[in-house]
Amino acid sequence: MAGNGLLNRRMLLGAGAAAALGSIASPGGARAEALPVEPWMKIPGSPFVPYGQPSPYESKVARIFASVPGTTGTGTSRTPHHLLDGMITPNGLHFERHHSGIPDINPQAHRLLIHGLVKRPLVFTLDALLRYPMESRIAFIECAGNSALLYQKEPAALGVQPIHGLLSCAEWTGIRLATLLAEAGVEPRAQWILAEGADASGMSRSVPLGKAMDDALIALYQNGEPVRPSNGYPMRLLLPGYEGNMQVKWLRRIKLTEAPMMTKDETSKYTILQNDGTSLQFCFPQEAKSVITRPSPGLAMKAPGLYEISGLAWSGYGKVAKVEVSADGGRSWAPAALQEPVLSKAVTRFRMPWRWDGGEVVLQSRASDETGYVQPTRARLIADRGARTIYHFNAIASWGVTPNGEVKHVYA
Amino acid sequence: MAGNGLLNRRMLLGAGAAAALGSIASPGGARAEALPVEPWMKIPGSPFVPYGQPSPYESKVARIFASVPGTTGTGTSRTPHHLLDGMITPNGLHFERHHSGIPDINPQAHRLLIHGLVKRPLVFTLDALLRYPMESRIAFIECAGNSALLYQKEPAALGVQPIHGLLSCAEWTGIRLATLLAEAGVEPRAQWILAEGADASGMSRSVPLGKAMDDALIALYQNGEPVRPSNGYPMRLLLPGYEGNMQVKWLRRIKLTEAPMMTKDETSKYTILQNDGTSLQFCFPQEAKSVITRPSPGLAMKAPGLYEISGLAWSGYGKVAKVEVSADGGRSWAPAALQEPVLSKAVTRFRMPWRWDGGEVVLQSRASDETGYVQPTRARLIADRGARTIYHFNAIASWGVTPNGEVKHVYA
Repeated sequence: MAGNGLLNRRMLLGAGAAAALGSIASPGGARAEALPVEPWMKIPGSPFVPYGQPSPYESKVARIFASVPGTTGTGTSRTPHHLLDGMITPNGLHFERHHSGIPDINPQAHRLLIHGLVKRPLVFTLDALLRYPMESRIAFIECAGNSALLYQKEPAALGVQPIHGLLSCAEWTGIRLATLLAEAGVEPRAQWILAEGADASGMSRSVPLGKAMDDALIALYQNGEPVRPSNGYPMRLLLPGYEGNMQVKWLRRIKLTEAPMMTKDETSKYTILQNDGTSLQFCFPQEAKSVITRPSPGLAMKAPGLYEISGLAWSGYGKVAKVEVSADGGRSWAPAALQEPVLSKAVTRFRMPWRWDGGEVVLQSRASDETGYVQPTRARLIADRGARTIYHFNAIASWGVTPNGEVKHVYA
Repeated sequence: MAGNGLLNRRMLLGAGAAAALGSIASPGGARAEALPVEPWMKIPGSPFVPYGQPSPYESKVARIFASVPGTTGTGTSRTPHHLLDGMITPNGLHFERHHSGIPDINPQAHRLLIHGLVKRPLVFTLDALLRYPMESRIAFIECAGNSALLYQKEPAALGVQPIHGLLSCAEWTGIRLATLLAEAGVEPRAQWILAEGADASGMSRSVPLGKAMDDALIALYQNGEPVRPSNGYPMRLLLPGYEGNMQVKWLRRIKLTEAPMMTKDETSKYTILQNDGTSLQFCFPQEAKSVITRPSPGLAMKAPGLYEISGLAWSGYGKVAKVEVSADGGRSWAPAALQEPVLSKAVTRFRMPWRWDGGEVVLQSRASDETGYVQPTRARLIADRGARTIYHFNAIASWGVTPNGEVKHVYA
């Protein structure tokens, strides 16, 4: 058994449950009168609305965001994972990275052009696309710059949302790009595609044709409803597992090319600067990673006793195979329960029951994916790659718990 | 091959794709100049917001609702499935059935009491519940009165939303009721639970203890975020596969009993009146069912050619095993593709490519579940059960397509 109170899930749900959990619930009276009749039980509630909203009591369950000075919409907004559970990120809380704000696109005027090295250049209206065969998949999207703060020398005094909030997961539905490319007829010389957005920044990225033909989608729906404006309405490119920047929002154009186009978004940015001054370019998949979302900074623990350690794990290379949790800074590890369904290139929720004894603790999680890759320590990642970049940080993160129940970002 | 243009999915994605699809896309110029530079490409877009909203262009993607005269919040709102795709219903569009509106519950004051035939009556605050081990599952909820209009003699001139919109599917996360019952200590005599809501109607239902111990959840999260007020904030009972009415929202009390309590919501309502004047009571699971969502009434087909027939199938008894589609009113059937992951007691999206030749067509879908149960015809269901009830209508529904491309609700 791993140290510092990590519990076996089966034991917890068996005969020992009452004892293990006894300190959380309060004794109740044996009759209903033990509960007061609250004011909201005495008057009719509020009426129906066409499109619902969260409880006003949950106003903290919101994105935080920051824009580049002098702009209003160039920057990021981040998902409050410390206040969420499950695998789906609701659409109102999906993270955003915009390079020139959210364009106000009229869907009737919007077109998708497929051209370049094709036999038949084609233009698609939204109405035309709605007639094609569709597919759905639950997929995470992570900004290549997520968790960049962990490249810094000292641990930022921040929590899950500001550090790791450039990650979300939704069910995306759309048309396989392969279907549209087959219709256009790909010339044998074509090896790449250029994907371009209809925002004012002209966001564009080169994508290998192999990925385009594999599992790329022209996504029209996000968690069931039309894709949100902030996520590319009326359509975005979905490249499951690849860095978020490539999954071009407000997609207007796909050009088939022999070679990558070396756009500003894949040269001046989204390359990994190494210690020797050279850069790694075209690092597409997001490597296996995990983060504990509860407990985490901002969620104080009021008393010793039972808690659930819960978090998210994901890999751009496929399914999460294992998540291990440590409560002693990495000296011992225990396997967490993985919430089914475990899906390729989606987040997987992991859970581990834990009895906190009130002492100092360092909590960590470590993901492995189905390729056998194991999430590295921070020291290992920085030794291999250096710390001059802000991209693709996927090493183990650590939360320290103090005896008074405060949770802090630490390096361990 | 089934009649009237139902296509094999493999064939479509193979070499014949271009020919099959050629009529939908428009020829594009070979260069980017074939697309105009739209106004939204010339100015910075809009800034970040804490909680995002749908596109203003998609204001039709909304619930329709009706209240009992003289009330504001007693009635139903319905999910616009004809405008959605995928399996997840976004939280703003989840159907609702309220018996006295949406209570404005202060989560800090709310309590959950477990009492009756238990060794230790317990009272839980929301903060206490947040420390327990959780589980997530994607589950449909369907009102027992969904599709009741199909018991009528003549087909209602309506579409998917008003007829079948009392169905939604979300990822729910919460605590197994079994965990809390183990802590309270169930007395051997207990065979049922009474679940009661904190709304002004005092909604309450009796649930067999077996179900409570099996897969019942105290759901705190809906699609990742805290459960919406309209879906039971701060907590609801989730009984996967059972009729929606039993999955008590705003849950405040669970009482363990020897027998069902015969509440108003399981005697005067939610019983199935048969032709002989007696009623079936305690019909818990929603039987296997399917409905085509696209094409459907309100979605006109502008020209012959390729379309995707898409819809939802579900069963309260487990996984959907098969969905067949007919384009000739049930004379011939072809198996549809089922979108993975196919999950027990969740909706499954089915898809079937179809070439419409411009003639008159009657479209139907027929679901089978893993128990071997096959969705019945309307004639069969009414022959067996009569048509004096409004509950548990799960028979095959039919959409007629006219040569001008209009889609109408028909009986066939």
